[in-house]
Amino acid sequence: MKRTAYLADLGSDHLDQRVTVQGWVARRRDLGKLIFIDLRDRSGILQIQIEPESPAFTEADRMRGESVAEFTGMLRLRPEAQRKAGNGAYELIADQAKLLSLAATPPFELSKGREVAEDIRLKYRYLDLRRPEMFEKLLLRSKVSAAITAFLTAEGFLNVETPLLTRSTPEGARDFLVPSRQTPGEFYALPQSPQLFKQLLMIAGVDRYFQLARCFRDEDLRADRQPDFTQLDIEMSFVDQEDILDLSERLLRHLFETVLNTELPSPFPRLTYQQAMDTYGSDKPDLRFQLPLVEVTDLFRDGAFTVFASVPSVKVLATGELTRKQIDELERVAKQNGAGGLTWLRREGEGFSGGISKFVGDFAAELIARTGVPPGGTLLFAAGEWKKVVTALGAVRNALRDLLSLAEEGFQVAWITDFPQLDYDEESGAWTYMHHPFTAPHSADLPLFGTERQGEIRAQAYDLVLNGFEIGGGSVRIHDPVVQQQMFGAIGFTPETANEQFGFFLDALSFGTPPHGGIAWGFDRLMMVMSGAASIREVIAFPKNNRGSDLMAQAPSAASEAQLSELGLQITPGK
Amino acid sequence: MKRTAYLADLGSDHLDQRVTVQGWVARRRDLGKLIFIDLRDRSGILQIQIEPESPAFTEADRMRGESVAEFTGMLRLRPEAQRKAGNGAYELIADQAKLLSLAATPPFELSKGREVAEDIRLKYRYLDLRRPEMFEKLLLRSKVSAAITAFLTAEGFLNVETPLLTRSTPEGARDFLVPSRQTPGEFYALPQSPQLFKQLLMIAGVDRYFQLARCFRDEDLRADRQPDFTQLDIEMSFVDQEDILDLSERLLRHLFETVLNTELPSPFPRLTYQQAMDTYGSDKPDLRFQLPLVEVTDLFRDGAFTVFASVPSVKVLATGELTRKQIDELERVAKQNGAGGLTWLRREGEGFSGGISKFVGDFAAELIARTGVPPGGTLLFAAGEWKKVVTALGAVRNALRDLLSLAEEGFQVAWITDFPQLDYDEESGAWTYMHHPFTAPHSADLPLFGTERQGEIRAQAYDLVLNGFEIGGGSVRIHDPVVQQQMFGAIGFTPETANEQFGFFLDALSFGTPPHGGIAWGFDRLMMVMSGAASIREVIAFPKNNRGSDLMAQAPSAASEAQLSELGLQITPGK
Repeated sequence: MKRTAYLADLGSDHLDQRVTVQGWVARRRDLGKLIFIDLRDRSGILQIQIEPESPAFTEADRMRGESVAEFTGMLRLRPEAQRKAGNGAYELIADQAKLLSLAATPPFELSKGREVAEDIRLKYRYLDLRRPEMFEKLLLRSKVSAAITAFLTAEGFLNVETPLLTRSTPEGARDFLVPSRQTPGEFYALPQSPQLFKQLLMIAGVDRYFQLARCFRDEDLRADRQPDFTQLDIEMSFVDQEDILDLSERLLRHLFETVLNTELPSPFPRLTYQQAMDTYGSDKPDLRFQLPLVEVTDLFRDGAFTVFASVPSVKVLATGELTRKQIDELERVAKQNGAGGLTWLRREGEGFSGGISKFVGDFAAELIARTGVPPGGTLLFAAGEWKKVVTALGAVRNALRDLLSLAEEGFQVAWITDFPQLDYDEESGAWTYMHHPFTAPHSADLPLFGTERQGEIRAQAYDLVLNGFEIGGGSVRIHDPVVQQQMFGAIGFTPETANEQFGFFLDALSFGTPPHGGIAWGFDRLMMVMSGAASIREVIAFPKNNRGSDLMAQAPSAASEAQLSELGLQITPGK
Repeated sequence: MKRTAYLADLGSDHLDQRVTVQGWVARRRDLGKLIFIDLRDRSGILQIQIEPESPAFTEADRMRGESVAEFTGMLRLRPEAQRKAGNGAYELIADQAKLLSLAATPPFELSKGREVAEDIRLKYRYLDLRRPEMFEKLLLRSKVSAAITAFLTAEGFLNVETPLLTRSTPEGARDFLVPSRQTPGEFYALPQSPQLFKQLLMIAGVDRYFQLARCFRDEDLRADRQPDFTQLDIEMSFVDQEDILDLSERLLRHLFETVLNTELPSPFPRLTYQQAMDTYGSDKPDLRFQLPLVEVTDLFRDGAFTVFASVPSVKVLATGELTRKQIDELERVAKQNGAGGLTWLRREGEGFSGGISKFVGDFAAELIARTGVPPGGTLLFAAGEWKKVVTALGAVRNALRDLLSLAEEGFQVAWITDFPQLDYDEESGAWTYMHHPFTAPHSADLPLFGTERQGEIRAQAYDLVLNGFEIGGGSVRIHDPVVQQQMFGAIGFTPETANEQFGFFLDALSFGTPPHGGIAWGFDRLMMVMSGAASIREVIAFPKNNRGSDLMAQAPSAASEAQLSELGLQITPGK
């Protein structure tokens, strides 16, 4: 039998007609001698009524929760008092029933899915995905990926698939390796991103490329990451930074409009890295609430509070009344994020109490004016080296958001631009690249290479930030061999090192490279934010847990001796 | 500077206007004191003329082949005698030039790309892809993938990404393994296909799923295969075989219409496996030419030619005049494909000469009538067990196609249906599955399970064949646990074996499984046939050679001791 339609598509057109429906038994109630079944398919629910004298009764009586069933009968309006919205207004009076697949008792109640331990949900993911809210996330993801494909194809982009069995790429995380059987002792790497390949496609003249690319990073899975993930990868030739930002904005606006019916601003707000760090203490600031970091270094300079008197930077966050316990918790956050401590004041009338109040009498009015702290409100200070101060207060700012529910509904998007070209690694005492070694610096900053001020070189690199998450990042790439040499020099790459790591790619650059640049969007993260999910695991059909295990398929697992022997590998004893 | 347009988009709208163009120097000629440059971008070629007194001359004079350059100047009509089609009618008289990237001398001439050794083309793939015919293939692939996404999304299919770090799947080829660092000594498998995951999505109620899925098989790379490849994966619930064939036909017709402007028949022709093998000696017959295998067993039965007198099957191919050398070559093909030899006759008037002519005098007229062999033409016989006979002659049929250029232009598509459910493995003397162990048999054939005739059980399995290539295959899946037990029994799986291999999946089937089925298209192969390429390597941006090596990126390669140590692995000495 064929179903007449999805359940949600049954309506006035089918009223008082015979229809056939198929789906899962979401709920069964026996009322007196009647059987009521809530039948579920991906579109919704329909109530089926089976009367005791119906020829369908015996078959319907065998059905248990989550069984797959088919019913045929008349579609009727429900009694007026019981009518609900949509197809909740209708019910099917079944005279034919077929149990298509009897279900064993599910390990958890689907209607209580949210409260079920995540490990159970992951083990029985095929049941978890039957929950309408999970299906909605898969549907959203599919819609967005279709909309991306249509939009970029119409803009002249080519979807090109790049290799998954390849060689190390320059993202700097750890590679997954794949042993080669044909050349035992050698390995492919799974790509951390298609970075080199997309640049090679520009060298090949493809001009505009995109891919929803599967990527792999073997990281310790803190912080809601997955070992295999998806990025929307975009690269363009004969463009500058503005072209790439413009394309990205138009694409993201299009997705929000067509899929979520939500308008994003045009253009997106922009903050330089310097501004974002200085004002919000983060290069991915959550702009759904304000709460800026306020500069007060000058007020304490050479003052009585010696701890603050000579540090490079003192900043403060002003908030409402906080309990001592809350302040202690926020201090823990500040320390975890590199601050020595979190100094505080409570406003009392036109002055302050607590913490360092005895040191601020002289400039209490100025403190109130700059921070706008309300009576009874709290000031939270950090002091020290600028980057440490802002980073710690940025973390406190986010903690205050969660503590006080400061974030407004909706979506706040922004570009963060002008990232530093180089990063100083304190541990190794050496300069390294911030993004990857092919990121182009601002041409105005080129003279700083090799000087004491090379830390100030700004990259033509940008991140796309949404509700406090980095959902994209990219850069204009170096296409000038002279600049590339300067960059390698700055990070201590000899020509030999460079050649060893990227030899084939440097060769490629020498055969005629157009100006080019691009961006990569974290597709899972974007889906998480767009769907309002709490974790990227919620927007991936079959995710791994945070120990990298697929609890459903039970991967990873042992390999056979024969497999290892073919690969020329042995497991190190004791591991 | 921004380019005015792609080169091919410059035309009458821009005539006698200033335009800016960017691209690669495809050719430079110095004529007298003039420089002519053929500039190339992905859209086409435009001739640039730089006069000796032009301010652009000095810069243009530095340009070599494959350099990246920018020109600004007036777009003019070329002198009438030199005008060519499209933008070959125009030339740019440049007064500004900029060398954006000087190119080293390319390792091969792009215009001679077809004649260059494939290893060189693969090593410098980014140059090879600059050839317009290669770009066209990437463009076709991108268009088809966008059209697939749009079509299936409109039909209510969800694009769902399935895991790439997973567990062995039941395709029966060899898995690539990925060592786990977090649990040393354990391994993920890269998926040979999303088979189990797509069925799990049906169990999850997704109802309609598709994915352009990356798949991996560690096979010896004979026969134009790649270790990582792409398949269009489709699965549907509450459907039967007809629904899946119908959807596939509509999709393929849509792709050919929109992308190639070519009409495919509606409906597609169908042959059962039995018919295809019997008539064409292949389960992927090339229908661009006829040349059927003709049945002549009865003519030789109990006759004078004792070799043919009592064999189960004698078949014959009738063709035109062949040289002795050609016949020898065809006999080699027949033997390679399992025949003991290839017996032949030449028609002379109303009789035959050569080969076994002395044995066929009695029924020469009947042989001529049945085969339609023309005067001077050749008959090629194979005799023996039916499957061996048809397989060998099927290979000879394809060899004749290549030898005599029999295939007509265009596309010939067909379904092959009713594949056998079970395959008898002569080596192990055991029955095994033909496709995978979840393929549903025809319900009419269920009583044959466990009998001597179980080899006759027909599966609800089908292949899509285009110009002699299998471009898709699928089946209706078993959703009835009783049938699944029968199937496991037939292939000698104890409940324990089944549980060990597919435990989690068998669990999933028990929680309410809808009737479902699907198909997987070999996307690379389809692109090859649609683009008229000779190999799938031509339609993959960065393919591996047939030893599994990426000659450009130089993968696979050695891993460091530190990497292996983290994975708890050692390379077996002497390997």
